Amino acid sequence: MATVRLLTDTEAGAEALAVLDDIRARRQTDYVNNFWRALANDPALLRATWERLQTVMAAGALDPLAKEMIYLAVSTANGCDYCVHSHTAAARAKGMTEAQHAELLAVIAMASQTNALATALSVPVDERFMA
Amino acid sequence: MATVRLLTDTEAGAEALAVLDDIRARRQTDYVNNFWRALANDPALLRATWERLQTVMAAGALDPLAKEMIYLAVSTANGCDYCVHSHTAAARAKGMTEAQHAELLAVIAMASQTNALATALSVPVDERFMA
Amino acid sequence: MATVRLLTDTEAGAEALAVLDDIRARRQTDYVNNFWRALANDPALLRATWERLQTVMAAGALDPLAKEMIYLAVSTANGCDYCVHSHTAAARAKGMTEAQHAELLAVIAMASQTNALATALSVPVDERFMA
Amino acid sequence: MATVRLLTDTEAGAEALAVLDDIRARRQTDYVNNFWRALANDPALLRATWERLQTVMAAGALDPLAKEMIYLAVSTANGCDYCVHSHTAAARAKGMTEAQHAELLAVIAMASQTNALATALSVPVDERFMA
Amino acid sequence: MATVRLLTDTEAGAEALAVLDDIRARRQTDYVNNFWRALANDPALLRATWERLQTVMAAGALDPLAKEMIYLAVSTANGCDYCVHSHTAAARAKGMTEAQHAELLAVIAMASQTNALATALSVPVDERFMA
Amino acid sequence: MATVRLLTDTEAGAEALAVLDDIRARRQTDYVNNFWRALANDPALLRATWERLQTVMAAGALDPLAKEMIYLAVSTANGCDYCVHSHTAAARAKGMTEAQHAELLAVIAMASQTNALATALSVPVDERFMA
Repeated sequence: MATVRLLTDTEAGAEALAVLDDIRARRQTDYVNNFWRALANDPALLRATWERLQTVMAAGALDPLAKEMIYLAVSTANGCDYCVHSHTAAARAKGMTEAQHAELLAVIAMASQTNALATALSVPVDERFMA
Repeated sequence: MATVRLLTDTEAGAEALAVLDDIRARRQTDYVNNFWRALANDPALLRATWERLQTVMAAGALDPLAKEMIYLAVSTANGCDYCVHSHTAAARAKGMTEAQHAELLAVIAMASQTNALATALSVPVDERFMA
Repeated sequence: MATVRLLTDTEAGAEALAVLDDIRARRQTDYVNNFWRALANDPALLRATWERLQTVMAAGALDPLAKEMIYLAVSTANGCDYCVHSHTAAARAKGMTEAQHAELLAVIAMASQTNALATALSVPVDERFMA
Repeated sequence: MATVRLLTDTEAGAEALAVLDDIRARRQTDYVNNFWRALANDPALLRATWERLQTVMAAGALDPLAKEMIYLAVSTANGCDYCVHSHTAAARAKGMTEAQHAELLAVIAMASQTNALATALSVPVDERFMA
Repeated sequence: MATVRLLTDTEAGAEALAVLDDIRARRQTDYVNNFWRALANDPALLRATWERLQTVMAAGALDPLAKEMIYLAVSTANGCDYCVHSHTAAARAKGMTEAQHAELLAVIAMASQTNALATALSVPVDERFMA
Repeated sequence: MATVRLLTDTEAGAEALAVLDDIRARRQTDYVNNFWRALANDPALLRATWERLQTVMAAGALDPLAKEMIYLAVSTANGCDYCVHSHTAAARAKGMTEAQHAELLAVIAMASQTNALATALSVPVDERFMA
């Protein structure tokens, strides 16, 4: 029920197919998930998104699992159903345990609650919180 | 410019004051930030929120800094200005480096971008992402 | 710090001024709040918004205060700072007590928390909840 | 299509089962809806959420139906599909008439519209709306 | 899986049916999409929404396709799945090409990314951006 | 009141300064707005964001002003105050007339209203709207 066709390898043009192949190669799997097959309708956007994702999610000052859980937290707050599913799966693939998942959910729920209170109360920012 | 008064210690009733005192004691500081002074208008809500926060943010399967960064990610996606300020300050107090902050921002930006794309494309959830 | 000028009565055209006058007359006050002075830049939008608001917020199956609290709940969830301020003030003017305000905040906070959990868990809708 | 298993009574541990039993007892029904079966994966979160919900939604300065409609308004603004379904059903169970539902929808729609306008115009908060 | 019945022509009252007929007449099609059949439960809301939509979406200083793409952008940011589907279809019906759709998606993704960054950084508004 | 320092040219490192210089050169102005000075704390993110923005916002199948209005619509729906200000100013600089601004606001308001209704009614997507 997408708003664009999910392109198969055969339907994708050469430029898009090269990215789909790169996704398979780097992830060491035959499976390319629907998000990329939807983006394949616009090869330039597909490439830009995939390349930027590699850069952003690589290990650095934060480890890949921490980044994946942050990604999932943002996806939840944005109410993106597809993203919640795909990044929950990705976090599990990167080693998220049930206990870590449970704590992640508890933090997301807590933050959503206090966010709503701070907004409803229009709490002015404390001077000491400014840079 | 709050929608309720930010209660001083003197204005707060005994029940609220006990919580404000607990905040000072556990955080080992004299300063109580505005969020709690706004909540002090409803001592029951103040107590429930503070107690739950202690439980949720304690070290467990995730360390306190990881939780704080997740909290900040949710606050950003929810567009809560006060929360972004207070949890950026909290994350720094818990040791977030500039490099970690930079990576956190990059993940939040990446997630917001792909969230919007997944929504606009209405990408159907891959069967393998379901529990 | 608006993105358009807040028009004074003198700056507003005849069509907009007629609406501003109607606001004063129906509310029995000399004061017209900034929202309407911003909308006055587009008299047709000003009139359509003001007229529809009168219809929607009139007493009916729900009383005006109940409607005002629902309005405030939506404004909070949408993160609209101006709306939170103006509808908190409006609810108070319609008789919202401190106890009612406190309970409203607690419901908003509770809903925000379980909303986040339902989204993060992607809970499938129970058959019995469908119309 | 949840991101966690919806636990049956048999799969739930003793701690979670006690909460599921309490839900059945207090609601005087055999049916436990999916939200609670998803939360059952984390008994502590399940208990905290269910207990807090009882406190928040009890009759007080606002009656239970008014609270349920406020809950539904927040769920709509947050775009939580599950929550919209479950709280529409809950409001009906608490006596919401078709006429009340219609007015609730009209207020939610009106608020969403003026929220967007206030944000797009960046209307500054009137001094008299501040506490 | 709606929260209200989608009324058929037979189930709709005379007032609602008149609007459904007007939709068919103006759109020169026999098909009335689900949104209007859901709204038909409240004839007054149905009429107000349909009439306002005609006014707002008519050609003016912006052409109808430009308006439709703006509508789709808002629907995406609001995470409204139904709206994303219906307004993608509407934009195509008004002549949106694949290339235009691709650019629209790229702008929406870019905006979502920088929106998140501006919020996370709490960037103060430049004086020259104020009206 | 940002969460990071807004770097002056002197404070910015060589890599960030090169981007700030590029912004000035391409925009033919001495002024660099606060968003870029905040991003300058992370030169890699600054460069990636600026470069992608150039690509996305260039004339193509949609003209630059149409893109800018779409950007503003997304920023409004996301509730990003800074973005609403900066992109309203940018749209005006690209030729947006008062009449176009008024129609843009009316479309954003209309979409926000019907988005809320579609969500509250959980309208199922019509088969003919699927790709």
